[in-house]
Amino acid sequence: MAGNSFGSIFRLTTFGESHGRALGGVLDGCPAGITLDIDAIQNELNRRKPGQSAIVTQRKEPDTVEIYSGIFEGKTTGTPIGFAIHNTNQKSKDYSHIKDSYRPSHADYVYDKKYGFRDYRGGGRSSARETASRVVAGAIAKQFLNAIEINAFVSQVGDLKLEVPYQQLDFSQIESKAVRCPDMETASRMEDYIKDIKKQGDTIGGIITCVAKNVPIGLGEPVFDKLHAELGKAMLSINAVKGFEYGSGFSGVAMKGSQHNDQFNTDGSTITNLSGGVQGGISNGMDIYFSVAFKPVATVLQSYDTIDKEGNKVTTQGKGRHDPCVVPRAVPIVEAMTALVLADFMLLAKTNKI
Amino acid sequence: MAGNSFGSIFRLTTFGESHGRALGGVLDGCPAGITLDIDAIQNELNRRKPGQSAIVTQRKEPDTVEIYSGIFEGKTTGTPIGFAIHNTNQKSKDYSHIKDSYRPSHADYVYDKKYGFRDYRGGGRSSARETASRVVAGAIAKQFLNAIEINAFVSQVGDLKLEVPYQQLDFSQIESKAVRCPDMETASRMEDYIKDIKKQGDTIGGIITCVAKNVPIGLGEPVFDKLHAELGKAMLSINAVKGFEYGSGFSGVAMKGSQHNDQFNTDGSTITNLSGGVQGGISNGMDIYFSVAFKPVATVLQSYDTIDKEGNKVTTQGKGRHDPCVVPRAVPIVEAMTALVLADFMLLAKTNKI
Amino acid sequence: MAGNSFGSIFRLTTFGESHGRALGGVLDGCPAGITLDIDAIQNELNRRKPGQSAIVTQRKEPDTVEIYSGIFEGKTTGTPIGFAIHNTNQKSKDYSHIKDSYRPSHADYVYDKKYGFRDYRGGGRSSARETASRVVAGAIAKQFLNAIEINAFVSQVGDLKLEVPYQQLDFSQIESKAVRCPDMETASRMEDYIKDIKKQGDTIGGIITCVAKNVPIGLGEPVFDKLHAELGKAMLSINAVKGFEYGSGFSGVAMKGSQHNDQFNTDGSTITNLSGGVQGGISNGMDIYFSVAFKPVATVLQSYDTIDKEGNKVTTQGKGRHDPCVVPRAVPIVEAMTALVLADFMLLAKTNKI
Amino acid sequence: MAGNSFGSIFRLTTFGESHGRALGGVLDGCPAGITLDIDAIQNELNRRKPGQSAIVTQRKEPDTVEIYSGIFEGKTTGTPIGFAIHNTNQKSKDYSHIKDSYRPSHADYVYDKKYGFRDYRGGGRSSARETASRVVAGAIAKQFLNAIEINAFVSQVGDLKLEVPYQQLDFSQIESKAVRCPDMETASRMEDYIKDIKKQGDTIGGIITCVAKNVPIGLGEPVFDKLHAELGKAMLSINAVKGFEYGSGFSGVAMKGSQHNDQFNTDGSTITNLSGGVQGGISNGMDIYFSVAFKPVATVLQSYDTIDKEGNKVTTQGKGRHDPCVVPRAVPIVEAMTALVLADFMLLAKTNKI
Repeated sequence: MAGNSFGSIFRLTTFGESHGRALGGVLDGCPAGITLDIDAIQNELNRRKPGQSAIVTQRKEPDTVEIYSGIFEGKTTGTPIGFAIHNTNQKSKDYSHIKDSYRPSHADYVYDKKYGFRDYRGGGRSSARETASRVVAGAIAKQFLNAIEINAFVSQVGDLKLEVPYQQLDFSQIESKAVRCPDMETASRMEDYIKDIKKQGDTIGGIITCVAKNVPIGLGEPVFDKLHAELGKAMLSINAVKGFEYGSGFSGVAMKGSQHNDQFNTDGSTITNLSGGVQGGISNGMDIYFSVAFKPVATVLQSYDTIDKEGNKVTTQGKGRHDPCVVPRAVPIVEAMTALVLADFMLLAKTNKI
Repeated sequence: MAGNSFGSIFRLTTFGESHGRALGGVLDGCPAGITLDIDAIQNELNRRKPGQSAIVTQRKEPDTVEIYSGIFEGKTTGTPIGFAIHNTNQKSKDYSHIKDSYRPSHADYVYDKKYGFRDYRGGGRSSARETASRVVAGAIAKQFLNAIEINAFVSQVGDLKLEVPYQQLDFSQIESKAVRCPDMETASRMEDYIKDIKKQGDTIGGIITCVAKNVPIGLGEPVFDKLHAELGKAMLSINAVKGFEYGSGFSGVAMKGSQHNDQFNTDGSTITNLSGGVQGGISNGMDIYFSVAFKPVATVLQSYDTIDKEGNKVTTQGKGRHDPCVVPRAVPIVEAMTALVLADFMLLAKTNKI
Repeated sequence: MAGNSFGSIFRLTTFGESHGRALGGVLDGCPAGITLDIDAIQNELNRRKPGQSAIVTQRKEPDTVEIYSGIFEGKTTGTPIGFAIHNTNQKSKDYSHIKDSYRPSHADYVYDKKYGFRDYRGGGRSSARETASRVVAGAIAKQFLNAIEINAFVSQVGDLKLEVPYQQLDFSQIESKAVRCPDMETASRMEDYIKDIKKQGDTIGGIITCVAKNVPIGLGEPVFDKLHAELGKAMLSINAVKGFEYGSGFSGVAMKGSQHNDQFNTDGSTITNLSGGVQGGISNGMDIYFSVAFKPVATVLQSYDTIDKEGNKVTTQGKGRHDPCVVPRAVPIVEAMTALVLADFMLLAKTNKI
Repeated sequence: MAGNSFGSIFRLTTFGESHGRALGGVLDGCPAGITLDIDAIQNELNRRKPGQSAIVTQRKEPDTVEIYSGIFEGKTTGTPIGFAIHNTNQKSKDYSHIKDSYRPSHADYVYDKKYGFRDYRGGGRSSARETASRVVAGAIAKQFLNAIEINAFVSQVGDLKLEVPYQQLDFSQIESKAVRCPDMETASRMEDYIKDIKKQGDTIGGIITCVAKNVPIGLGEPVFDKLHAELGKAMLSINAVKGFEYGSGFSGVAMKGSQHNDQFNTDGSTITNLSGGVQGGISNGMDIYFSVAFKPVATVLQSYDTIDKEGNKVTTQGKGRHDPCVVPRAVPIVEAMTALVLADFMLLAKTNKI
């Protein structure tokens, strides 16, 4: 398996399976001299971890990060930051029922075909547990980015949409609700809906919107590595993501150029921002905003038909401790990946001109 | 500017500005022994070139590719394939009016801020003319991929949607209409609409859908470099793209897991294909399909307000020869980028197991 | 700091400082299905570790590797192999005397200038302790390479040269002597010499020669990434290395082409092998052999003059537990880096032709 | 074939065969705003080109570079610089005698084995003609590096050594002699010797020494991508190179640490410079100097025995227009590769600290 690294200079490499001994990563290219708040890193991990509320999986994973290198006397040294999160509460027996059969819409089947066999426990490397490592690195990236504010929140669960434009939201309210939607009334309805879905032993999809403010002009490398192309890849690399759009997105398709163009103010900012803060792949100083579509979690706690390794039909009962809706816990992951993309482009931007 | 390369082993690097001497690229990592049909490469370029029909820009650019290396006695040698397309019909004077001012929703402003100045002629490197190089490399990738069929087509222009599921379309009809929609009636309506938009001196957005058939199981590197994540990045790196979704995409958000899961047939194929041919970032042998949203072209042939380099308000008249709708000409670009992604993963897949 | 990764597909990323909590790495791209002998990995680490004999440093570091991921039921899964070696015997107080001054011919001064400050304990990231991680990954690479035999040995210490051609050596004797020279008599003289140097509180340089047998024809990418160019970079990236030569090396300079050319046997092998198993950057099936020059260790247990951070002259007494000659312990490192280079080219070679 | 790119940010990708239509490359990541002297680029190419003097090959290749992109109004724009050198004087018939047989110590045999067949004309991609593209990019890198002075010169031909330390040489005399040795008397003897070798239809090896002055402190990424490791790879990637050493090099092996250590002056410079301007992989502000060993050219104008594709013994007469000694023409190539390495590290160094 290649592809366990992300970024060109500010570069994260991750390792680890869901039920292995530990997962973790190496963050290379982080500049020297950043005063790191370790608690802030753990706090981001806590936002992602299971068992936080009634609407997420009830697994108990402490997810304590150990930092092995790259920090001295509270500051980054410029050397790679190695870290690990030891697995402590893995119940591998929960998965023996899937050892020889393939769960629909999971990676089980393709892993077996691609690698010849697989670590079936908890989904192995295909588990979203891998994203814990991303959250650690993203939390470091956030501290490097400093003045840039990145806020992600749940903007849709199933058919329930947050109809308020992001400019009118109070981002300080995101954490007020377990579902991580900053509009209290919509949040309550979303939470009720998720609880109902959970009772059915079913799951539901959702959308996360992310806004990055105070991004300096000039980030992004404007051909293949456009700022929004890297953001798109970053988001699509998160488990269960099916779509990405930024600025006007899919709705921009139906607009005319004369409506869609963002007119300039005299200071170079724009009156509207259908561009989503990116022009020609380069940040223009306006808010960057985008949306990420998550499918419903594939593991349903219902009986289902599938096949075993020999191609025989089998009927299986879904079990284990799973999320009925992935978006609340995915909010810090979306923020982390956004921070990693911006941090890398911040470093690259230093090399643009003499 | 970094980021002018795409792919890890099967790797394209491009160069060239809209009104420079030539554009072109180097395709590295193409395996030896492929019998190349040079006419097929030129034919793909012809599909992309301006002046093909009444609904696209009337610029005349012959876009003849010259291949400099990497082929001997009709076959790829395994060495890098260098190529160039000389510019012959550039009317740089057409752009002197934008030398000192910034076109709204173009890259003019951010290029000046990022690099200190810019080659303003025809948009320089930010012009979609760069994609001609991608089409050349993609045409070579297609010949390498051989049995894999890649078909892209226009599925929406403005509000006009192609309502027929892709499985019922006859892909051999894509080239029958200038708009490249394989449903003749919808295509006619789209073309009329574009002509109308053009008369207004305005532009309109659209959606391209792409389907890849006969993709072997096992392509994609399943963490950061998921198959759909690379496809997403590839598409988002095309000029004017605002969104990407695959399989159920944004509509999957509102579905329950029990509905969304693709049940297995006993041969490992699936009854439904909401996964879009990709599970856990790896191809599963089913059709891969995705949609790409394009915004309306920013250059409108109307009078508009903007600012100059000093921040003074100026009024400018849009002129030049531009596309009223970019999607018909973007169809071969979408196919080319798809082919590049699949070719790279085909090579990587050879290294998965002992 | 960038540059903590090595290899393109079979790719190692390392982290860790000499006196940090742990060092380790991530080995990405290792194919699935290799039955791994964990003891063999630990054994390679033991060959490198301090305190093995009277002629190396007397530090006691158990250097026990913990493998966190990538292995399931004894076999590689194709997912990244994360591992760590916890530091247990670090005596950071030994280094307080160098906190504010710069040791001559060490990296202290340049680290401070490059990063603004440094983790001075044990040399931090600049310590050769980092190479423990390389030995772990190299031991895995060796198991992947299987039939390829890689043997390194000490061929020179100070002025004492091993005069026997490598073809006449018994590689099974390399480990018989602490100095790792397979000629017993030369080895004894080398060991006596090193003991004498040690008594003086001084250090001495040396040369390691490495031979790889049974390398298949066709490894190496023949422009910038020539097989011998990657081997050269790999060796020059090891601490204290000052030079690299392969095949006829520097002595080939004085030869005529008519003497230097290796004539073919009818089976494609060559009668002589001045090419060193590589032609045009590609392995030709003959033995690959090369030599690596190591300077004397910079830390001498004598009094020396240097400067402090403010540029004041200071006199310091060298202390701590250091190697009088680095080459005996560097033998497994040279082998490990050779294995990493060959493993990567083995995977790349799978993509050469259709 | 992978591996046709060099550098991480300041990155050159080359293409082209000896007798193909053109060779050239793309230089990506060159910062915007460098005022480029195009004549200086062509002048470097002229230093490399055949037919300059009586001691090099008499082939006539004008080697005129055409720059296609990346420059506007005399300055680099930050976009990729594409360029080509068209082949005009290729005599492919000269090579028909080697179509079906393998020249000893050439890449013919391994190319056939690796790729299944080869472009045999003039050695195809394995020809040193590829280095013309490196010289173009290196000439641009030199202009970016500006105050850094890079001078390479011939320090040995066969057994004839330049015995003068580089500090006593007048680098302005390098171009005074065809052999590119700045000591006039040694140069004359070298030239006579090469003429004698040429009369014999034979070839001879040599050594090039290179010195880089005014390199700022802090270049190099100090684990795998040490400054000297990249320089070593760069040099070993040049055709016919068999060895590399920097600073004390192989002679440092026989020194004691107490002799080898470079003592500091109070300004941080060192009294001696056995380190060769690099400590721990990072430049320390002192002169960087290194030596590169070239084997004798394999093509001798004598009768020789070899094998054909079927493994039959054949006797062939060497012919064509070849260099009796490669080092005079390799001087600008060594300088070019040095400039590429330094330029890349200059950009990376901008990302070291906040």
